[in-house]
Amino acid sequence: MPSDEFVVTPWHVEGEIDYEKLIKRFGTEKITPELLKKIVRITGEAHFMLRRGIFFSHRDLGRLLDDYEKGKKFFLYTGRGPSGHTHIGHLVPWVFARWLQEKFDTTLYFQLTDDEKFYAKQNLSMEQTKQFAYENALDFVALGFRPEKTKIIIDTQNIKTLYPLAAQVAKKINFSNTKAVFGFTGETNVGMIFYTSLQSAPCFIENRPVLIPLGVDQDPHFRITRDVAPKIGRPKPALIHNIMIPSLSGPGGKMSASEESGTIYTTDSPEAVKRKINKYAFSGGQPTADEHRRLGGNPDIDVPYQYLRIFFEPDDKKLRQIYDDYKSGRLLTGELKAILIEKVTEFLKSHQQKREKAKDRLEKFFFEDR
Amino acid sequence: MPSDEFVVTPWHVEGEIDYEKLIKRFGTEKITPELLKKIVRITGEAHFMLRRGIFFSHRDLGRLLDDYEKGKKFFLYTGRGPSGHTHIGHLVPWVFARWLQEKFDTTLYFQLTDDEKFYAKQNLSMEQTKQFAYENALDFVALGFRPEKTKIIIDTQNIKTLYPLAAQVAKKINFSNTKAVFGFTGETNVGMIFYTSLQSAPCFIENRPVLIPLGVDQDPHFRITRDVAPKIGRPKPALIHNIMIPSLSGPGGKMSASEESGTIYTTDSPEAVKRKINKYAFSGGQPTADEHRRLGGNPDIDVPYQYLRIFFEPDDKKLRQIYDDYKSGRLLTGELKAILIEKVTEFLKSHQQKREKAKDRLEKFFFEDR
Repeated sequence: MPSDEFVVTPWHVEGEIDYEKLIKRFGTEKITPELLKKIVRITGEAHFMLRRGIFFSHRDLGRLLDDYEKGKKFFLYTGRGPSGHTHIGHLVPWVFARWLQEKFDTTLYFQLTDDEKFYAKQNLSMEQTKQFAYENALDFVALGFRPEKTKIIIDTQNIKTLYPLAAQVAKKINFSNTKAVFGFTGETNVGMIFYTSLQSAPCFIENRPVLIPLGVDQDPHFRITRDVAPKIGRPKPALIHNIMIPSLSGPGGKMSASEESGTIYTTDSPEAVKRKINKYAFSGGQPTADEHRRLGGNPDIDVPYQYLRIFFEPDDKKLRQIYDDYKSGRLLTGELKAILIEKVTEFLKSHQQKREKAKDRLEKFFFEDR
Repeated sequence: MPSDEFVVTPWHVEGEIDYEKLIKRFGTEKITPELLKKIVRITGEAHFMLRRGIFFSHRDLGRLLDDYEKGKKFFLYTGRGPSGHTHIGHLVPWVFARWLQEKFDTTLYFQLTDDEKFYAKQNLSMEQTKQFAYENALDFVALGFRPEKTKIIIDTQNIKTLYPLAAQVAKKINFSNTKAVFGFTGETNVGMIFYTSLQSAPCFIENRPVLIPLGVDQDPHFRITRDVAPKIGRPKPALIHNIMIPSLSGPGGKMSASEESGTIYTTDSPEAVKRKINKYAFSGGQPTADEHRRLGGNPDIDVPYQYLRIFFEPDDKKLRQIYDDYKSGRLLTGELKAILIEKVTEFLKSHQQKREKAKDRLEKFFFEDR
């Protein structure tokens, strides 16, 4: 892979992603200032993840909002492939989904694809992916969703609802389509080949349009869904994409739940958070404090700064101050890391309490097949 | 296709099938006189479909019976793809399955693959295949099964049980496997590609060996299942194959539920039966009665005779008499047809009454997901 190249698929992200290029490659649309204004007009504000381009791209969001303004409601759908414990990068689209849910007062479906991760990972059993699905669901619920409006779908548990919907989609997708979109080969197992139609299924679970906030790596699935939708007489899903969250060890990939050292889990202790950030977090600073004070750091590639930007510092003024101070060299790498450590520790302390309480409330969130 | 060639796949049967050749092509085993003797030793008799080679081939039946004699019980599984109304050809493996069930006192699962036929037939909706599944189930129940030991599985209804089993299989099958076994191409829809793993699933629904009585055209599915079974730590299913039931209009294909003129449906009136047999049944007789008396007929290609052999005349002596009389020319084509018409009419009169009663009992047979 040449150094200026990058790979973004639902199962593999590699290289330093150029999001402008990715928009062209995927054929999505950039979130323009005009679209942002429209969102503010409807919701009263632009979430900081929108202002900062964490959500940077979309498909048909403009049309969806136009329809919404004319009285046509939509519902929300997002999800997670339970291949491991939840890490803080996973929370990005979920927190944003909650904001959307509140602003548009609508149902949200959260799909946990235990089957997908079983198909995709040679060494994972279905029992393991189910267990991870349960663990991930706790983190989701801990973010403050309300069970009346929020339903968790687990593929193997809710297959009776999903399968007939998936079948409608599956009949309209052939192997060549999956080859073109996902790069599947003769060696790909038939579970994987079928699976995309199950990720499409929740798009059609209610008989109205859907908006899907999601990591941009998941876009290929819904490119297929959008092709199929008119063929089965259903509206095309609208999408809003977030960037890939860098791993602690730096840009060039998304944070992966299976790479212990580069990952902060939602269940990490304050000590683990401190140790991981201090030891592994990729820095945009200079080799020595003196040099740093003289030359300044580079917040644009600095992972602690990026984590503040993406998730942990919603206040634009404070973030700007940190940016300027780090760039000018006033703020040292250790100091910047200390800011992040405090923010993460504070967040996780509260999150872990809510996560514990979620254990008793989880049942209320599970979608029930009819 | 050269005239000596034939095609046998789960979705397409064409040409005059040479069953000796088919055994070699599929790599199955012939039911030998020794194996027949073993069956008689265990069950006390050989069903006429065994004696006459209607069930002609198997995989691992010898081993299964050896194990049975050592005390290792098995269960039974067969099924039907609900692409249309039930015709009399469908009843062949079901009647035989009932005999096996009684002789071996075991559970029987009957799978109705509404999803498969939806995937395979461009013009069938899932509502239609579901409706046919219900219709077909009535015919199945009418054959005298007991609900305590007999469970009907409908794919879309029982997917919660089937899918996790299918997923274990699906992970071990790749696209190239399905290409080699079924001749799938890039144009094949992903539902079809995945489907074979759902036909495998009931093989693993109980934790003991299974015997599957089935039309030989379904063998390719279980060739895959048998390859996969040891990889997921389960016993290979044993199979016993029946020949394809010829359509009324003659050898060179199996009776098809979608070809009205060549098909006697279980719901046909006595008039329809008479008309269809007289009008369409392919005859092995001579052009005129005089010639027939002089030269004799050919029962081996005569469809009315074959129907008697396959299903409607269990008495070997009576069948032999008909054979000899037709061959010698004593029995005319019209007379042979009249014998069949009487047998079919008699059978259907009783069957249709039982089928009507089955409507109230059907619920008892439906498999319940846990």
